[in-house]
Amino acid sequence: MNNMELQNSIQSKLDNLTKPPGSLGRLEDIVKQFCLCRNNADASINKKTLFVFAGDHGIVEEKITPFPKEVTVQMVHNMLNCGSAVTVMCKKAVIDYRVVDMGVAGEFDKHPLLLDYKVAAGTKSFLKDFAMTPEQCNLALDSGKKIAASLNCDITAIGEMGIGNTSSASALFSLLLDKNAISTVGRGTGSAGEMLQKKQRVIAEAVSFHRKQWANTPLDALQRVGGFELAGMTGFIIGCAQKHIPVVVDGFISTASALCAIKMQPDVKENLFFGHSSNEKFHKNVLQNLKVRPILDLDMRLGEGTGAVLAVQIIEQALNCYHNMATFNSAGVSDHVS
Amino acid sequence: MNNMELQNSIQSKLDNLTKPPGSLGRLEDIVKQFCLCRNNADASINKKTLFVFAGDHGIVEEKITPFPKEVTVQMVHNMLNCGSAVTVMCKKAVIDYRVVDMGVAGEFDKHPLLLDYKVAAGTKSFLKDFAMTPEQCNLALDSGKKIAASLNCDITAIGEMGIGNTSSASALFSLLLDKNAISTVGRGTGSAGEMLQKKQRVIAEAVSFHRKQWANTPLDALQRVGGFELAGMTGFIIGCAQKHIPVVVDGFISTASALCAIKMQPDVKENLFFGHSSNEKFHKNVLQNLKVRPILDLDMRLGEGTGAVLAVQIIEQALNCYHNMATFNSAGVSDHVS
Repeated sequence: MNNMELQNSIQSKLDNLTKPPGSLGRLEDIVKQFCLCRNNADASINKKTLFVFAGDHGIVEEKITPFPKEVTVQMVHNMLNCGSAVTVMCKKAVIDYRVVDMGVAGEFDKHPLLLDYKVAAGTKSFLKDFAMTPEQCNLALDSGKKIAASLNCDITAIGEMGIGNTSSASALFSLLLDKNAISTVGRGTGSAGEMLQKKQRVIAEAVSFHRKQWANTPLDALQRVGGFELAGMTGFIIGCAQKHIPVVVDGFISTASALCAIKMQPDVKENLFFGHSSNEKFHKNVLQNLKVRPILDLDMRLGEGTGAVLAVQIIEQALNCYHNMATFNSAGVSDHVS
Repeated sequence: MNNMELQNSIQSKLDNLTKPPGSLGRLEDIVKQFCLCRNNADASINKKTLFVFAGDHGIVEEKITPFPKEVTVQMVHNMLNCGSAVTVMCKKAVIDYRVVDMGVAGEFDKHPLLLDYKVAAGTKSFLKDFAMTPEQCNLALDSGKKIAASLNCDITAIGEMGIGNTSSASALFSLLLDKNAISTVGRGTGSAGEMLQKKQRVIAEAVSFHRKQWANTPLDALQRVGGFELAGMTGFIIGCAQKHIPVVVDGFISTASALCAIKMQPDVKENLFFGHSSNEKFHKNVLQNLKVRPILDLDMRLGEGTGAVLAVQIIEQALNCYHNMATFNSAGVSDHVS
């Protein structure tokens, strides 16, 4: 079945369901995108996964975040114990989750929910230096691809944990979209007043330093101002597209990885659902820039994948309608005035 | 515990959870509203219900809808067989649903999912007459209150089925909000071109007829241009508020009932969640007029309660986080830079 036949087949199935044509609105768009991604007009969702990519950031040395760096380690433990928001949500939504240690500054015992892909104990501060070496950046990207390569599910979602990672995401947006740091830097976990101003000054200085030497590639941007978890998600997105496993992107930081992946391989975009519009201020601009409309808009700014999980539930209900509703014919319902 | 103590107790519980304060955005507002409605800082969601109120409309004689009147009966059967969108969604979301025959033009055998509150076999055309007698209108309202009175659940949702009921809802909005029919009348299940223009002309004529004699009360508006299912939902909303059972309102037509209920008893508004913003054109205006922000905006325009079910799932996840996330203390997570 070629792409046009596939589209027609999905549309005709949608239009036979007992509802006015198009009346399920974006749920119908979701069904179409999902089935096209899966290259199967009868694609359904059985197994769902979520990966929380975690890493630490040297930039926190600049004291631009209200939470100490140790919180990354602490929150990974909290996730492994199913105490964080995203893990509590996954449990309820029957989503199989894993935490990926991409570069947390701390050691963990082996745990069935933890994947160890630690590149190093956090990046270097990108204020006046590369966050990572080329080898580290490639290793992080490859780790994401590797996780995708061994993945077996119908849909997956990404989230992240890493004190300092809104700074890294903002710097990436500044480089990749040519925006100044005043517009891309927001409060993150809760920087306000003096601290927020300092965060903006520091990122502006870093961006200005890197912009002069930047090779104008997403790879170089990641290496300069990215994070291990950001590179991991970028690789994961690319790997999932190869396997036709749709990825639900979470908020501000996950979108930075999505942007890197799209800049590297534009066609991965079709494989992405943007879960929600974050309350982190620059997120709406990025989504507009990418010409995508997120599924939800609930003023959330927690990250971890929390917005993505809620979006997965919407996607599931869209597919549930698609597969389980009666047709006009089977239900004996008139589809027009005779 | 007085209201202020209750609010403080909820807020303090939210702020102890392992997340930056306020970062769950509207999920936190939802938790607060839900617990305040339930008058319990530890309120949780166990049992969920949904009621689809069904009725027929005399106004369809004017041939202003692309589906024949018989579809109301057919769709009730489809719902009893779990073939319609909302019933398929309820099954997945573990929501206990019932279809309420408020006034369908057709007879049904007894069925465990069907509640028989039939007032009459459809309303009269409201083009130049009252849709219902005062007795019928009161009976429909009382039936809704009665269903609420015997209800035992933590949250409920409403939806509707009735060919012609967007016409009735539009006429109600025109009277209650003093808007002309050109603005309140939209395509409904799919009126377009000539048919849509006719629908607008017919409703404009009817509204102009009734406006002259209207007693300026929501009760009189319901009796003049409402429907049995619309009056049933209005009574149900009022009854649920008395029992502190929050109601999730669906789209355009359910919102017309919500508006009637709020005009009758303004304090019921606090007990309502508005599930989604419908793609039926005047819905966004009504929500603005009511100063409420719906939970979802997915361009849906199917009714039945489909948007409400998706919103219930969001509300459930909000409460799930509230009750099951670890606290900073229990998880040993630092809540600020020391």
